[in-house]
Formats: sequence, C-alpha cells, structure tokens
Amino acid sequence: MPIITLTTDFGEKDHFVGAVKGAIYTEMENLKIVDISHSISPFHSTEAAYIIQNAYKSFPPGTIHIIGIDSELNPENRHIALKLDGHYFVCANNGIISMLAQAIKPEKIVEINIHDRIMSNFPVLDVFVKVACHLARGGTLEVIGKPITEIKELVGIKPVVNSEGNQIIGNVIYIDNYGNVVCNINKQLFDDVGKGRPFKITARRANFDEIFSQYSDAINFETPKERREEDGKKLAIWNSSEYLELAIYKSNPTTVGSASSLFGLQFRDAVTVNFGPINQ
Amino acid sequence: MPIITLTTDFGEKDHFVGAVKGAIYTEMENLKIVDISHSISPFHSTEAAYIIQNAYKSFPPGTIHIIGIDSELNPENRHIALKLDGHYFVCANNGIISMLAQAIKPEKIVEINIHDRIMSNFPVLDVFVKVACHLARGGTLEVIGKPITEIKELVGIKPVVNSEGNQIIGNVIYIDNYGNVVCNINKQLFDDVGKGRPFKITARRANFDEIFSQYSDAINFETPKERREEDGKKLAIWNSSEYLELAIYKSNPTTVGSASSLFGLQFRDAVTVNFGPINQ
Amino acid sequence: MPIITLTTDFGEKDHFVGAVKGAIYTEMENLKIVDISHSISPFHSTEAAYIIQNAYKSFPPGTIHIIGIDSELNPENRHIALKLDGHYFVCANNGIISMLAQAIKPEKIVEINIHDRIMSNFPVLDVFVKVACHLARGGTLEVIGKPITEIKELVGIKPVVNSEGNQIIGNVIYIDNYGNVVCNINKQLFDDVGKGRPFKITARRANFDEIFSQYSDAINFETPKERREEDGKKLAIWNSSEYLELAIYKSNPTTVGSASSLFGLQFRDAVTVNFGPINQ
Repeated sequence: MPIITLTTDFGEKDHFVGAVKGAIYTEMENLKIVDISHSISPFHSTEAAYIIQNAYKSFPPGTIHIIGIDSELNPENRHIALKLDGHYFVCANNGIISMLAQAIKPEKIVEINIHDRIMSNFPVLDVFVKVACHLARGGTLEVIGKPITEIKELVGIKPVVNSEGNQIIGNVIYIDNYGNVVCNINKQLFDDVGKGRPFKITARRANFDEIFSQYSDAINFETPKERREEDGKKLAIWNSSEYLELAIYKSNPTTVGSASSLFGLQFRDAVTVNFGPINQ
Repeated sequence: MPIITLTTDFGEKDHFVGAVKGAIYTEMENLKIVDISHSISPFHSTEAAYIIQNAYKSFPPGTIHIIGIDSELNPENRHIALKLDGHYFVCANNGIISMLAQAIKPEKIVEINIHDRIMSNFPVLDVFVKVACHLARGGTLEVIGKPITEIKELVGIKPVVNSEGNQIIGNVIYIDNYGNVVCNINKQLFDDVGKGRPFKITARRANFDEIFSQYSDAINFETPKERREEDGKKLAIWNSSEYLELAIYKSNPTTVGSASSLFGLQFRDAVTVNFGPINQ
Repeated sequence: MPIITLTTDFGEKDHFVGAVKGAIYTEMENLKIVDISHSISPFHSTEAAYIIQNAYKSFPPGTIHIIGIDSELNPENRHIALKLDGHYFVCANNGIISMLAQAIKPEKIVEINIHDRIMSNFPVLDVFVKVACHLARGGTLEVIGKPITEIKELVGIKPVVNSEGNQIIGNVIYIDNYGNVVCNINKQLFDDVGKGRPFKITARRANFDEIFSQYSDAINFETPKERREEDGKKLAIWNSSEYLELAIYKSNPTTVGSASSLFGLQFRDAVTVNFGPINQ
C-alpha cells in the first residue's frame, strides 16, 4: 500500500492539513498518509530541509513525500518532483531539497507542468496532491513534468573548512523540541577533517572537547545519584541523525531551560571546531 | 472504506483525542480516522465553524465529521446529527453548523436521543463515536434521533450590507497560522454588492483597494530581487476558501510579525468595504 | 488489524514521530498507528503515566502502546515490555507504568534484551519499534526479554490518608488543555474514606464542598441566561477518568483564565479533603 507523507508549515490548527488529507483520499482510497511535521516555522526552508532529510530514511522505498513550504507558484518559485534514494519528493524548487541532494544525487528531477489545468493559491491541495497520487498509482515523473538537471541551492547550510584543514566553521540549523541545538556539522565531515586529533568546539558561551554517542554517556553512574550533578549538565553529542548537537542533559525548555537558552544560541549562530594541539 | 474526521478543542496534549480514536476502532475496525484540528480555541464555536466549513469539502461524499466543541449535554445544548451536501456531521446544537447551513440547506437533521443508555461528561467519546460508527456502518439518522427542522444560529457571523448598497460591514472570524486575518466577507457577496465598482477596504490601521487571487500577485517580479520590498508587504486576497483575507506577504507571527499583530486586528474586529467613487 | 499507539515527549515539530512511524511501516504494513500524545512535557513521567492510563482503556484488547519518555538505555534506566489488562506496553522502566500497575496487576513483565544487536541514542526508533512489531505479529514477550517481577515506582503519585481516616492529602498530577486541575484522588478512594460524610476540599485559594458529575450540573438552567454567572464559575467534578478535577466552567487558559491560573495551582501542589462534621 503506497505511503504519502506530509511536511508543511500549515500549523496544527487551520483546516489546511485536513483539507489536503481529504483531497488525497478523494483521489485514492488505498494508501496511508503519515504526518511528518506541520509545525515548521512559516517559510523556513532550512528547518523543513533538516526534518525531511532525517525522517524520510525510515520509510519504505517508494514512499512519496509532499513538502508544503513556501509553495505558491510564481516566476521565481516553480514546482518540482524528484526521485532520490528510492523515494519521491514533491515540493517547490526553493532550496528545500538541496540539503538532501548534496548528499545523495537525485535519480531524476522534473519541473511539474500540469498547472495549465489548475490555478490556485493552495498548490499543495491542488497540484501536489494530484502529483503525489499519480506517483502512488505507479505513474512516472515524465508524465507530470519536464526533466531538469539543476535545483535551487539553500544558502548557508554548508559548513566551511579553512585552508589549513584544522578548523570547521558551521552554523546552528535547528533547535529541537528539547531546546537542544543542532549544527550543520556531521560526523563524516568531522572525522574527515579531524583525523582523530584533539579538538575544541566553541559556540558563544559554551565549549566542548568531547562528543558523546549517547546522552547518558555524559553521566557517571558510579557516583551515587544524590551526589551527581546530572540535570542541567551540558554535553556535545552525535545525534540520531549523526549531526553535532549541543545539548543539556534532560532539559526542559519551559522550566529549567535548554541548550538554546542557556548557551544563547539561535538559528544561524556560528559553531566552530578547532583541531590539533589545543592550548589551555 | 468509511472516513470519520475529528474537529475538537481537545488540544494536542491530553488523552482525549487518543481515547476517542481507540473507542472508534473498538466499535469498528475498517475505517479511516482523519484529524482536521484539535487546536480550536476552547469553546470557540466560530473558529470551529470556519474550519469545518473549509475542510469538509475536500473529503469524499459520505464522510462523517465529528465536531467536539462545547458538547456537554444540558437543557440548552442538545446533540444533533445531520446530512448536508452529502456529508454527515455529528455535533452539539450550539451554532457550529449554522455557518454551513446558511450556505447549503441540510438534507436532514435529527436531535440525537440515544442518551438514555449513556450518561457521561465525555459525550464525544460516549455518544458521538456511537452515532458516527452507526452512520459509518450505513445506518440511518432516524434510528439515532428524532427529526428536527431548526438549528441554533451562531451570532455575529453574517456581514451587514447598508441600505444604499454601497457598504459591507463584516468582522474578523479567524486568524490563521501565518497570522493572516480572515473576514466573514466572501467573494460572492462582495461581487453581488460591488458590481465591479472601485472599493476601499478599511480595517483599523490598514486600507486596501485591490484584492489579489494569489499572494505572489502583490509582488512585481520584474523588479530585481534586491530592490523589491516584498517581505512584510501588506495585501488583501481571496483566500483558498474565497473569503476576504488581509495578509502580510510571507509573514511569520513569531518573528517579523503578522497581519494580525501589524494591523492590530483581533477576532470580531470590524472590516468595512466601501464601494463606488472613492475620494482621496 | 493490530494497533500500535504512540505516547511521547517528542513534540509536534521534530522529525522523531515521523521517523518512528516510517520505521513501523517498514517493519510491517498491515497495522494502524494511533497518536495518543507527543506533547508530554520533556521527561515528565507523571504526565505520561496519567495520559496513557486514561487513553489505553478505550482501545481494543491486544493493542500495543509505545511510551517514549526518558527512554535512553543506561545502568539506571532499562527497557521493559509488559502485558496488563489485555494490553501491551513498551517503555523504559522509569516509573511510567507504575500508576497503572498499582491499579491492575501486570500479567507479565519482561526486561527487553535485544540490545546486543542495536546501539543507538534513539531507542524508540530502534528498540521499541522492533519489540512492538514483534508483538503485533503475535510474538511473545519471552522472546524479546527476560521475565522480571518488580518495576520502578513513580514517587509522589499516591495520596495519603491520615490515621483518623478523615483526611486525604493528594497532589495535582495534571493540568489539562482547558487549564483544569486534575488531582491524584479518585472516586473510589474518596468514597472508601469518606463513607458519604460531608466534606471540604481545600486547594490553596479555593474551597469546594460538592463534587459534580457533569460540568453543566454546576449551572442552574432555570435562572434566565442573562442573570446567570456561569462563565468563570468554579467547580469540582469527577472527570471522565473518575479523578477529582478542580475546574472553571468553560474556561479558556489564553483568555479569561483557567482553574490552574485562577486558583494558583501547579503540578505537585497539595489538595486536601477533610471529611466529617465541617465547621464554618
């Protein structure tokens, strides 16, 4: 049974998500619809890119992912559909898919051209649903668009390595539900540049010289619980998507605070890794 | 396969929504449940009315819509089920359905009378689920209620046209996820009263003399991007539900602000359209 | 068709929930996934315990409930799966299930031991999904864990009865979507201790000497509507889960205020019931 996923900035309250699901089931009964997120910040392509990149892999090959962010058709914002890593994506050509396409080359990209029959300011409902259901029925990309080879890039999501090869300057790309801070530095880049050297991570008020693979690794469970200072302990970790994450152990953004609030880190803020003999 | 949709003010956190879905699947396995919204402001009938009106149409005929807003049974709040436009609605007789019923005459309305067997303070779980599953199994309205002809009206959701026929005074009925402001003036009324005359829309600090059909229509894409002042640009648009919407191009309520905050407009605030030769 | 439910503190925005659903459908196509809540406060075991306890009962026997709160494996936090009241639960052994297990004895508990094949900091995705799908396919608990008899207790969720048997001291365990305040005193305990005697409930600024069974029971519908002071009326009620709830009639936390804000009551605050001849 085909699966269509939805990732949008429609929010949880409005009728948009319900309307889209109704339109899908009107087109086609025998499929599953799965919400990935409808709480992307409005028009925030980087958030959407991060979320779809980390969610899609868990789904079976052939899954169709609708991304409804900044998708109104205009001269600078076209609609595309593509196949990548065995999955289909339907979205606007606004950079959202470039984070994914940097890592894995798309097998095929088309610019959707079924708009002559449709005119609307709710393209997810009118255009993306039609395209997704066409794919869910086993239709090909060529039927609903013309092949293209280039897609728009998202600016500022690639970390920079200096010419000496001993520094990575990255950025905050996402703040998660626990207020933990995700950077655009992944484990592979870190290992390639660092080559096992000691390092120091600097992000505004916070420094780290160790990166854990589990949150609990930051805690010494041999110390009796009452003498441990574990809650509120800061740590760096490779998160489940293998990105560098600056975290607070068991943080709660609405009560004790979070990495984002305690370190003073927001979207786009710089995170620097220096490798080599570290002084002090 | 029957579809039951849910529109409630239960919120996303409590166990209410999960409990209702469990009860539906306990009654009946072979159906789809679709969430329309659970984030209606508590007891806010107008919001619920706006959302269900705009969502239901996308679903296939025969879909059953449970609306769980202010639904406790008491001498002034009875439970009803009705068929309208080929769809079924199960809700309290508190005005929610009147916005819909003004536009499209219900085919049949019954006051639910299966309560002698059920006594609870969670009627969506106990009563609405039973009624919806009865309908999903192909049961008739007459079995679960006695026919009635009148339903309660929602107060203050109809715009007023002055006797000269050159002014519509409407109200804000909804603020959407982008902070855009939806009024109770739809395109049909506007065209009927305006007859193509020039017009001026006034809503507190904001004025508009044009209504677009797409957000992007407010932007001149021939001006180079760096010289355009598009973000934060105010505009009036016929939204995807054909209601007059006062919007900010690509607004984000939590960062740059939104139509609601920038124009100072809240639920119930007046929005006036004057037609005819417009001075100044 | 098997049902798997999800109760987590993952929030509505991140990719975690979508990823878990994708992983379930990758393991197994023929089942239903139902969200109970993803908005549990981070690491808040008591909230999760309250919600799962009140939601699970509505589902058909055999339903599998994944609870993803504070579930990283470490020396003090093991993974368990259990059968209780005909339902399966998969979670960390961190007290979440103890509220349920106090009321109904588990039929079988195992400590999950499939971890040698899996190492991750996203155990809901990697471990709980595998266990849940194993159970959904009709597998037994013994295959995925070793039987244990004790589970960790949640501290501070049991009310205390004084030695004279005329006082119950309980606590606030949950604030619901309407801002109503739920205490850990249920109707059975209240009836057992109170034996029909008059009583006075005290919670900070608020007192109550009556407990209703429906919100509307607090309103006298014979008084004409315009002379009634119903909105904002405080009341105590046995909620739909038969817990003592201190409420405001038709409250809205974001506008007129709620029981929580008006009575000044937060999680863990004391709620006292005194029985017997009540002076004053």
